[in-house]
Amino acid sequence: MECNVPTDIVFSFSGLALRGGLKGPHADGWGLALYQGKAVRTFLEPCAAANSPLATFVRENPIKTLLAIAHVRKKTRGRVALENTHPFVRELWGRHMVFAHNGTVRGVRKHPIGRFRPVGDTDSEYAFCVLLHLLERAFPKGYPRSQRALWTKIAELGGRLGRDGTFNFLLGDGRHLFARCATKLSYIIRKAPFRAATLADDDLCVDFSEVTTPTDCVAVIATQPLTRDEVWVQGTPGEMWVFRNGKLQSTLASR
Amino acid sequence: MECNVPTDIVFSFSGLALRGGLKGPHADGWGLALYQGKAVRTFLEPCAAANSPLATFVRENPIKTLLAIAHVRKKTRGRVALENTHPFVRELWGRHMVFAHNGTVRGVRKHPIGRFRPVGDTDSEYAFCVLLHLLERAFPKGYPRSQRALWTKIAELGGRLGRDGTFNFLLGDGRHLFARCATKLSYIIRKAPFRAATLADDDLCVDFSEVTTPTDCVAVIATQPLTRDEVWVQGTPGEMWVFRNGKLQSTLASR
Repeated sequence: MECNVPTDIVFSFSGLALRGGLKGPHADGWGLALYQGKAVRTFLEPCAAANSPLATFVRENPIKTLLAIAHVRKKTRGRVALENTHPFVRELWGRHMVFAHNGTVRGVRKHPIGRFRPVGDTDSEYAFCVLLHLLERAFPKGYPRSQRALWTKIAELGGRLGRDGTFNFLLGDGRHLFARCATKLSYIIRKAPFRAATLADDDLCVDFSEVTTPTDCVAVIATQPLTRDEVWVQGTPGEMWVFRNGKLQSTLASR
Repeated sequence: MECNVPTDIVFSFSGLALRGGLKGPHADGWGLALYQGKAVRTFLEPCAAANSPLATFVRENPIKTLLAIAHVRKKTRGRVALENTHPFVRELWGRHMVFAHNGTVRGVRKHPIGRFRPVGDTDSEYAFCVLLHLLERAFPKGYPRSQRALWTKIAELGGRLGRDGTFNFLLGDGRHLFARCATKLSYIIRKAPFRAATLADDDLCVDFSEVTTPTDCVAVIATQPLTRDEVWVQGTPGEMWVFRNGKLQSTLASR
């Protein structure tokens, strides 16, 4: 989720959490990263979200944020463990970078990772280390002044790693949400006039017109649409979206 | 807290949380880091622990761990914000390092930090970056095989930074808990025969004999003793303790 006003992620997280072991097979861990400026807080558990007291707490005690990344894991590589639980966080350029991956990138270990060492043993965290290393090498002086240069580089690196497997990812830098589609990805932007929406996996319904102001823009990105009565935009494999201020800023080729 | 068997930190955290805004002035943020192997989960809030629903949740849903670091903040440098909330986490040598500081190190910014950039603006996080940079420089190949070499280096670096201000700290690497005393620090090791203990700041009492086995060893380190009816060992300024497996492994000069 990426927004122009602080928004809580309760509705979308509720839908995602259901896929974490109840309505979906992604029962091997869950995580939620919530930015406040350049820094992020995470909630992580190496177990199913669907029956997690902590996931329930997060839903019952909403925290507003401009940028959040959530993940439910179905393990392909790497055992069920805290260190293998997405999203992953690392510091780069004095800000927290957050990464969640869907897919398997079998050939990833041939790429250099420089100073970034994985803590766990997933291909996902390794791929994140590759991204960070190559980003730091491309912009050694710090967070690039040219947003466009950053977007283009991330899309290029996504494409390079995407050749080694399935590389759907969400990447946050505290300002942008980057979403690459390898196989499946969709987004929706909610803005005025707001309407009601119902979760795809539950009967939970929210009337967004009651909880928003007319200038709010909230982008939600997910592997599969989280609601059943809204129109989501489907991603094209090999493309990357850039969201900022609750708007799709750019769609870049990422092959 | 550092133990030889997975232990929950509820009792000690309850005492510490009271000092976070109710029985103490440390109301500018709180954090709790819980290791599982090389990886750590954190709970962080830039507000008082004493009346935080999340801090209550952590007490009511105990998570067992071999190594935990908790902190309540009274700000001296840096505004009240997530990025300034202890404990801080960074990856080094493929493991999460965790750091919490008590005091102010005014002269810290003259030291190099290499690749580690602070996300916030506290002297504490900057000092952590200095520690990590100099540790990486001392052991560039990875986590040192010689434990003693690591202990000695951390004590030496603690002493070096301690010349620039007040540098009481707790540092975790997933295996050890390092605790440096600049002005005030105390520890207790609970082991058989276990007895009851009562918090210093509350009437909460736990009979540890009911929740332990005879081989358990649990070291608890705090700025000030957390209980009123146990004997805590007081630290000597300029010394650093090393805990592992619930035992004090070494006391090193750190001047």
